[in-house]
Amino acid sequence: MKIRLTIEYEGTNYQGWQSQNNGQTIQEKIEETLEKILKNKVSLMGASRTDSGVHARGQVAHFECFPTSPNINFVLALNSLLPRDIRVHDATKVSDDFHAQFNAQSKTYAYYILNRALPSAVSRNFCYWVPDKLDISLMQLAGALLRGVHDFKSFQGSKSSVKSTVREVYECGWYEEGEFIVFRIKAKGFLKHMIRNIVGTLLEVGRGRFNLVEFQDILDAKDRTRAGPTAPPQGLFLERIVY
Amino acid sequence: MKIRLTIEYEGTNYQGWQSQNNGQTIQEKIEETLEKILKNKVSLMGASRTDSGVHARGQVAHFECFPTSPNINFVLALNSLLPRDIRVHDATKVSDDFHAQFNAQSKTYAYYILNRALPSAVSRNFCYWVPDKLDISLMQLAGALLRGVHDFKSFQGSKSSVKSTVREVYECGWYEEGEFIVFRIKAKGFLKHMIRNIVGTLLEVGRGRFNLVEFQDILDAKDRTRAGPTAPPQGLFLERIVY
Repeated sequence: MKIRLTIEYEGTNYQGWQSQNNGQTIQEKIEETLEKILKNKVSLMGASRTDSGVHARGQVAHFECFPTSPNINFVLALNSLLPRDIRVHDATKVSDDFHAQFNAQSKTYAYYILNRALPSAVSRNFCYWVPDKLDISLMQLAGALLRGVHDFKSFQGSKSSVKSTVREVYECGWYEEGEFIVFRIKAKGFLKHMIRNIVGTLLEVGRGRFNLVEFQDILDAKDRTRAGPTAPPQGLFLERIVY
Repeated sequence: MKIRLTIEYEGTNYQGWQSQNNGQTIQEKIEETLEKILKNKVSLMGASRTDSGVHARGQVAHFECFPTSPNINFVLALNSLLPRDIRVHDATKVSDDFHAQFNAQSKTYAYYILNRALPSAVSRNFCYWVPDKLDISLMQLAGALLRGVHDFKSFQGSKSSVKSTVREVYECGWYEEGEFIVFRIKAKGFLKHMIRNIVGTLLEVGRGRFNLVEFQDILDAKDRTRAGPTAPPQGLFLERIVY
């Protein structure tokens, strides 16, 4: 049978989601724990390969196992064996054709920025500290240009080889949440480093380095060298995946 | 001359604020750093002795040094040498009669509770996870009974010896902030463990173990054994001190 997990984690102390056969990824930690409970080899398929330092509130993954109906005790057992920076929130039996990556209808990510003169001790691993003066309303207008179907090649990380760099952004925008400004973006899928490259470029708009026309030109150019720098990983959260 | 620092820290990896001569307290980390910069022995007096695991967004401390006007470069130098979980936000010359502890007019603390079925990976060091069903409106009414001048002996930690256990609570109440419920309390000063004992007891009210009359009886009893358990340190933040 197939089981779907919903997972929250702090990515600070891991080399990302994806297995690297060194035991230091989130996928491997959960696989090891499942194997202890199920006494069998487990192969976990995650919906998103989050990078080192990136966090998740709602990562989804599936695995196959011999028939054991997952219940709340299964989740409690998992959490009691997992490190405290990884928590499973739900384990549900799903149909055999379910696939965490391919069946995702939308993924929502949020990027947290702390825009103030001095950095934070408490939030240091959960946001990107930007001390510069930012024009948020201009960043809002530039962000709106990303909605819809576009070729996002200008925002694709190097060393990536996908067939198509066209993606559809369902929703995106800037929000004030407590002391943070948050960029939230929803799409069926993203290119490698796409959100961090978009945020890095929108910040350059906020600083006044690019105006709206120049930002549109960057999007149209399909050239990574035209866009801004990659924002660091610790501001990024995988919030939610809808199936 | 006398200098006042405003300090933010994550208390997770320290044995509290107060020096224990083992180098593992926040006071000692800041003293060591000041001594590196000023090339002189420094004695730092903090406004509040926060416990191990307790955090601060606005701790205040003072120290005396040879005349050197603190400016933004002094703050930046301090932060560049301090560990990343301690940040100094301000350094200001103050008059010679300033005392961080004795001159405080009010201190505001906030206690964060995560009230949901499963614990959090991301917030694990910054809140107290309470999975039980809580009657927040009853906790609100009980909390209101604490406002004003009372003998808080029932909420004083053991092994504490102060002359008077009477304190004045200026304001207190429960707030919903994002996914957390937050107890915020403002007073000129607090007894040892007072806030954590109050929160632990208000949670028992929320669970239905104590009703409002019983909560009032606990306050009136001046007997620590009558109150609820001490809430754990990681939910507590020293927010702000006013002079």
